[in-house]
Amino acid sequence: MKDKLKITFLGGVGEIGKNMTAFEYNNEIIIVDAGMTFPGEDLPGIDVVIPDFTYVVNNRDKIKAIILTHGHEDHIGAIPFLLQQIKAPIYGSRLTLALIENKMKEHPKVSYKAISVKPKNVLKIGAFSVEFIKVSHSIAGALALFISTPAGNVVHTGDFKVDYEPVDGVMTDLARFGELGKKGVDLLMCESTNVCRPGNSLSEKSVGRALDDIFKSHPDNRIFVATFASNISRLQQILDLAKKYDRRVAFTGRSMINISEVGLKIGELNFDKQILVDIDKIDKIADKNLLIVSTGSQGEPFSALTRMAAGEFKQIKIGENDVVIFSSSPIPGNEKNVYSVINALFQKGADVIYDELADVHASGHACQEEIKLIHSLVKPKFFIPIHGEYRHLKMHKQLAMNMGMEERNILLPSLGAQIELSSNSIKKVGFTTAGQRLIDGYGIGDMDSNVLRERKQLSEDGICVVVLTINNVSGDVVGDPFIITRGVVYQDEAEAFVQDTRNMIIASLKEQDLRGCEPSVLRNTIRRNVSNFIFKRTKRTPMILTIVLLD
Amino acid sequence: MKDKLKITFLGGVGEIGKNMTAFEYNNEIIIVDAGMTFPGEDLPGIDVVIPDFTYVVNNRDKIKAIILTHGHEDHIGAIPFLLQQIKAPIYGSRLTLALIENKMKEHPKVSYKAISVKPKNVLKIGAFSVEFIKVSHSIAGALALFISTPAGNVVHTGDFKVDYEPVDGVMTDLARFGELGKKGVDLLMCESTNVCRPGNSLSEKSVGRALDDIFKSHPDNRIFVATFASNISRLQQILDLAKKYDRRVAFTGRSMINISEVGLKIGELNFDKQILVDIDKIDKIADKNLLIVSTGSQGEPFSALTRMAAGEFKQIKIGENDVVIFSSSPIPGNEKNVYSVINALFQKGADVIYDELADVHASGHACQEEIKLIHSLVKPKFFIPIHGEYRHLKMHKQLAMNMGMEERNILLPSLGAQIELSSNSIKKVGFTTAGQRLIDGYGIGDMDSNVLRERKQLSEDGICVVVLTINNVSGDVVGDPFIITRGVVYQDEAEAFVQDTRNMIIASLKEQDLRGCEPSVLRNTIRRNVSNFIFKRTKRTPMILTIVLLD
Repeated sequence: MKDKLKITFLGGVGEIGKNMTAFEYNNEIIIVDAGMTFPGEDLPGIDVVIPDFTYVVNNRDKIKAIILTHGHEDHIGAIPFLLQQIKAPIYGSRLTLALIENKMKEHPKVSYKAISVKPKNVLKIGAFSVEFIKVSHSIAGALALFISTPAGNVVHTGDFKVDYEPVDGVMTDLARFGELGKKGVDLLMCESTNVCRPGNSLSEKSVGRALDDIFKSHPDNRIFVATFASNISRLQQILDLAKKYDRRVAFTGRSMINISEVGLKIGELNFDKQILVDIDKIDKIADKNLLIVSTGSQGEPFSALTRMAAGEFKQIKIGENDVVIFSSSPIPGNEKNVYSVINALFQKGADVIYDELADVHASGHACQEEIKLIHSLVKPKFFIPIHGEYRHLKMHKQLAMNMGMEERNILLPSLGAQIELSSNSIKKVGFTTAGQRLIDGYGIGDMDSNVLRERKQLSEDGICVVVLTINNVSGDVVGDPFIITRGVVYQDEAEAFVQDTRNMIIASLKEQDLRGCEPSVLRNTIRRNVSNFIFKRTKRTPMILTIVLLD
Repeated sequence: MKDKLKITFLGGVGEIGKNMTAFEYNNEIIIVDAGMTFPGEDLPGIDVVIPDFTYVVNNRDKIKAIILTHGHEDHIGAIPFLLQQIKAPIYGSRLTLALIENKMKEHPKVSYKAISVKPKNVLKIGAFSVEFIKVSHSIAGALALFISTPAGNVVHTGDFKVDYEPVDGVMTDLARFGELGKKGVDLLMCESTNVCRPGNSLSEKSVGRALDDIFKSHPDNRIFVATFASNISRLQQILDLAKKYDRRVAFTGRSMINISEVGLKIGELNFDKQILVDIDKIDKIADKNLLIVSTGSQGEPFSALTRMAAGEFKQIKIGENDVVIFSSSPIPGNEKNVYSVINALFQKGADVIYDELADVHASGHACQEEIKLIHSLVKPKFFIPIHGEYRHLKMHKQLAMNMGMEERNILLPSLGAQIELSSNSIKKVGFTTAGQRLIDGYGIGDMDSNVLRERKQLSEDGICVVVLTINNVSGDVVGDPFIITRGVVYQDEAEAFVQDTRNMIIASLKEQDLRGCEPSVLRNTIRRNVSNFIFKRTKRTPMILTIVLLD
């Protein structure tokens, strides 16, 4: 164990989202990222999903730092929950920390210490040395990491792309990756999100040019742009276009307003505040002089854009003179919502331009050629693909082997896996607790919980509640069985359904002597009878709750 | 009204799926297609969705024929439900009718008459003349229609692509479209599914070549191909490859076995039955001589392939020597399931090849250049885009205008719209009932039903049932309030939750005089109290059912 660097994978491997990794050397741990993921339809009612980070909680005394590569939710979303259980300073770029600060406002009881870092900074944290390396991504302030310990060193790319035309003028620091490669890198941990996509990602400036074309060719229209608030470079280009084409800018959506203020304050965004106009005052401005920048590019049900499309946004009525640009692409799972907003906007007469029709969005993740470039610069001894479903990790392994790496020098990680690195070996040493924690209101659940199974059953066929009072002495049913259904029967079936079910129960009980009966037995009999009766009649299988009261 | 052809849009416009159109001339109606669609997550517990075809039911005496363009579910899936309410002969190609026959086995009480037709056949149905035109699509036996009446004529493309290398050797009958165009077509109704995709669709034979490459480069592996059973041309190519590479074929999945038998019987598939091997006997065959053709290409939870990936398929254990080809692409909404099967197969050591990695699938729908070709051949006076969401219809309209059509000669249809065509005009004349009917077991629901709202609420936060018995005379609560929750609280919270809620109810009732109280008022008070209590404690909002019994 001594003089080995232990790496524990707590999230982001075998899945997209909730990235989290622990690096451990002797009695010191640093955590890289602590992200969340949004629940799919298989997790009804769950708010967010975070990593099961039992391992770091159990080792809380060792934790020296939490290092954040950038400010996207899949890298910082679990921080408030983590800070409720461990104490450690947070390191990240200014924008990352500004987003953390904003997030922590909702958790006023949790105190924390945050230290801002810049590219080229090198931190000594116990036996660790951590160098921050500038990378391009779809958010400003993204950093790769060079983590060294006496046992070996690691390049961790975070999320990145290689953009030869970055909007902020500072490129992914390819030279530094090359320099490190020359000196000798033991382990490369490289993200894999777009490893299935051949070629190179679109540059951010080419998106700017596509947007410029649209502004130029629609001089008299009112223009809307929906995009991710956190994509500061995109926002900067949109604000520059507003200035160029003499349009005032109205922001809508809480995160958009928030990020424009934060971005301006920390110097990541540059614009004259005079260009802004309050959304309540836009009716005084001619269409050709107006640009509305909004959230809602994912078709989120309550976003400004969705409400505009539905005609439910007080200040703005969408019409024939409007051009709406979705400068985004649907996150997998959101397609249906996004296209339904697009359809609704078209129906209101707007012209809608989205990524299927023009290059109005660029991914923030490296495609195959960019990934190969990093491999060729870093030339690591060992390689572990991260940030991807298993198919991505596997593909990334194949890519590395195609570039000449030997299979035995590549490890495919999985949730909870622990590996040990020394300067001449890498090996899996075991597994620790890992997986999903489900945040549900104030509570935390897990995947195996009955709660989710029950919600799923309820959502499929509803519930039928039967309440029955039995006189324990005479064995008579007191009054009528009480039946309520929710989510089971349609209006025209309802009355007869309840009546017939009640009659069935009464008839079935007539045959039995209920004196001194065991309520749990009776309950099960009734439940089975009601379930069969309903299935035969409707082919539905609602949950049946039977309550037997003894009088 | 006289001497006008009325067209009523009952499905497939402003949406993908459940295609259905009624053509009406004087007192005669022919129905083209009656499809279904699969419910999304916004329709929990619903089995399938069919068009609201009230209009044709109300006009049942006029209906002379149901004409099916091809046998996909979105064109034939509503037929059993339609035939329960109207009586009319069904016309379609042999394969289409074979699929109908199979479907109707589950509805043995519904009788019907089916008449098989071929390309170039012309039917006289009352004042209608209907000519069938061969088109390529991702199912055999697909037909476009030329519908003529004294009031005007219509080319209806059905679903189609232009495949210059069709597997069955018979191309989309471009010459006939051109001939009709020369004679004069009043109205073109053309499908729009892929109108946003530039260029041409991949030919079916190029998929065959990609598959051939994979077979050639994996001579020693066991090979699996998952595809849509109904894609007969794909199946034919796969069977041909099996013969070429000396592999026996095992089919798995009910629809795959069924379609291979039907296809062989009606002559759409050609193979020597000797090549087949029962799935129970494959252990006698060497990997290099085996090909397994299965359903489950959409990651369907109970399909053979999904069970293999999960290690739950008795006859087959997936391992390192297996190559699994997904000759398909995920239908929107199925991505998550498909990729989770792919990930699981990779994890079991198989090599998985899917559409992101190789040209192993071709769409059955025309892309932009193919659509333009049809427009240029048919040269219609009027045009109505069909089979698409509003964004597709709008894009298709733009495509027609780019080709020189005048805007006033194009109509964008919507559900329930009725238009009238004469040889020199086309216009919207009104709307009729149209929309979704939800098939839920034996029942039929509608979108506005409480049932769906209730299921959605139940799925989000579960249900809490409170039963309370009050002595009507003394006003005392008899016994303890009875509380059951489902889908609300996690195990470690459960006991305290029920206890505290019960105490809260008892405490709140102590302050009131309940003698002669109105149960409905008391019920509402308790419901409100419990709801507030639970929200404050858990931040969840379960459905609260309160039952007050008077003793």
